[in-house]
Amino acid sequence: MGFIGEIALILISALLAATISVRIGLPAVIGELLAGVILGPGVLNLVTNSQLLSAGSELGVILLMFIAGVESDLTLLKKYIKPSLLVASIGVIFPMIAFYGYGLYMNQGFERAIFWGVIFSATSVSISVEVLREFKKLNTKEGATVLGAAVADDIMAVLLLSIFISSFGVSKEEPLPLWLSTLLQVLFFVGIYVFTKWIIPFLMDLAQRQPVSHSVAISSMFLCLIMAFLADIVGLSSVVGAFFAGVAVAQTKYKDSVASSISSVGYTFFIPIFFISIGLEMKFDGFLNNIGFIIIMTVLAILTKLIGCGLGAKFSGMNFSSSLMIGSGMVSRGEMALIIAQLGLSAKLIAENVYSEIIVVIVLTTIVAPFMLKFSIARIDDGKDEVKNDN
Amino acid sequence: MGFIGEIALILISALLAATISVRIGLPAVIGELLAGVILGPGVLNLVTNSQLLSAGSELGVILLMFIAGVESDLTLLKKYIKPSLLVASIGVIFPMIAFYGYGLYMNQGFERAIFWGVIFSATSVSISVEVLREFKKLNTKEGATVLGAAVADDIMAVLLLSIFISSFGVSKEEPLPLWLSTLLQVLFFVGIYVFTKWIIPFLMDLAQRQPVSHSVAISSMFLCLIMAFLADIVGLSSVVGAFFAGVAVAQTKYKDSVASSISSVGYTFFIPIFFISIGLEMKFDGFLNNIGFIIIMTVLAILTKLIGCGLGAKFSGMNFSSSLMIGSGMVSRGEMALIIAQLGLSAKLIAENVYSEIIVVIVLTTIVAPFMLKFSIARIDDGKDEVKNDN
Repeated sequence: MGFIGEIALILISALLAATISVRIGLPAVIGELLAGVILGPGVLNLVTNSQLLSAGSELGVILLMFIAGVESDLTLLKKYIKPSLLVASIGVIFPMIAFYGYGLYMNQGFERAIFWGVIFSATSVSISVEVLREFKKLNTKEGATVLGAAVADDIMAVLLLSIFISSFGVSKEEPLPLWLSTLLQVLFFVGIYVFTKWIIPFLMDLAQRQPVSHSVAISSMFLCLIMAFLADIVGLSSVVGAFFAGVAVAQTKYKDSVASSISSVGYTFFIPIFFISIGLEMKFDGFLNNIGFIIIMTVLAILTKLIGCGLGAKFSGMNFSSSLMIGSGMVSRGEMALIIAQLGLSAKLIAENVYSEIIVVIVLTTIVAPFMLKFSIARIDDGKDEVKNDN
Repeated sequence: MGFIGEIALILISALLAATISVRIGLPAVIGELLAGVILGPGVLNLVTNSQLLSAGSELGVILLMFIAGVESDLTLLKKYIKPSLLVASIGVIFPMIAFYGYGLYMNQGFERAIFWGVIFSATSVSISVEVLREFKKLNTKEGATVLGAAVADDIMAVLLLSIFISSFGVSKEEPLPLWLSTLLQVLFFVGIYVFTKWIIPFLMDLAQRQPVSHSVAISSMFLCLIMAFLADIVGLSSVVGAFFAGVAVAQTKYKDSVASSISSVGYTFFIPIFFISIGLEMKFDGFLNNIGFIIIMTVLAILTKLIGCGLGAKFSGMNFSSSLMIGSGMVSRGEMALIIAQLGLSAKLIAENVYSEIIVVIVLTTIVAPFMLKFSIARIDDGKDEVKNDN
């Protein structure tokens, strides 16, 4: 089957699965992830991850985070920056310690045990963002905290990975010295400020005056991709760049038109490919033999984030329901953890006999997270703890 | 540079080039093609055609033709079906004979000479469609004739190629017997009729009732890709399938919403990649040594279609200006000819020492065609020959 047929199959499966999922009261994304599991090598073996699909999938998560940026309320993000930092910090420390300890207990040795910690300390917020969007909770105090914490978490995870790489000499390429990559990242954020304040509004106005159709949409797509690219260059993950590009574009008067056209690009093409791709990673070989290990790892992965991030929120003065929702929003690992794990495998930092189990654990947390988030949102909507939305 | 950066560069270059092009009074597509030439191995060597770019480019031309289908007026297409067939037929016969003769004269031998004819008998209507859209001439009698002729031309070119392949045993795979591929193609068109009449309206209504965002857009994207895929399976080119999918969707009440969302997907991402990709094929190695050959071939390529298709239109009772416009609309070769040439090279049906010149000739006709079309449209708009639009 050529790639055209493959994409057609992916799109219709994602749509069907999302429909069924919503009809039985679940977030659409759960259906799409499961559709990936079913299409993939784990069950029907109709679709496998290829270079093309990974590229489509990477564009999917970039567009997803860009759209989240466009739709986010910057004032709210700023207002909840302190809770975000606290949530992110405790949410990184808990899994680091727990997985390091469990890794040692499982005789992985110092390096590999720490690497387990690194893998499971990185939240992939994309899945939660999708659920928050679906239930219109992106612009609540909980949504803003989850988004802010996810960005901070990404920076921390990347920092941990950089320290790890420079200490253990993992990467095949010569890594940048830590001071240089930190400097670049600071420059990146200064650049974001300058861009958001002056350059992007100017560019968008300029684009709008051009006699070429879709010029504003093409320019915003360009800004999204170039900032994703630059974030990657300075050692952050590309989704962080895309998210800030979205926040920047949202400050211009083109916010609505950009949201509408880039949503079309994302949701009719790349984003379903992204969700399906994550499901495709699931394999069931030897699943039953290692079921105990998989269960323990999955429970650890869920609890460390749920409790860690939840405590962070509680310490910032949020009530129980809000803390539960924020903790649930940080559970999903998804693409970040998958990328770190792949890097670890090629650098022999993950034992080959546990690699596929770790991938299964990552996919499981990704599928479980939206359930938990949906449950905690329903709890708030039911008025427990008398929560007031800030928006 | 990773592919994210590469796509960002392609998008901004295409936008800039299109803007300059329109500002100096030329069709936008000329700028985009030239931007590809400049970015490519011919000049700056910043971008080269990769597997990812060809995939993006293929999706671009598929979406372009799907959108053309959505925006076309089916009544008008039907009304001008006879002129279309006449235009396509003479437009295939002229280049077949001329290139066969010139190939023999250039000592290419029987097989290769015929293959030159096959390459240059296939019109790539995508570029002309883009110009017709830009100048809002898609739904005129000339536009409808060009579109209809392009579809007929595609079927004839594919038929020629099939005959050629089965006579000379070119392909590495076992080709389908001619009667079977013809039967499949007839079935395909019967299927299109059934789909358009009953199945697609039903599916779109069904999609519209689903509680998933973008469900109508995803369904139409699916229909576009699956019909492109099926067209390819039965031996037609995928753009023909996409075009008919577009025509089918246009008969439903979702026409406008589909046109808007799929245009966003196409014009902010895939279609610029397609235009740039064609420019990327241009190389200037040994260009000057073979300049005479290139000029003769280019002039032949242009005149055979211009005169052949123009005569076809004249014989159907069109006046001189309309015939000129239709002839100009059929000149461009683009992706179809590039694909056939690649096939020929791998089957040693094109001598290696002329392959890159033939590619240059194809790219040149593709760049010249929009100029000619623009000129002939301006002629009609100036009221020469007192032409009345049917629309």
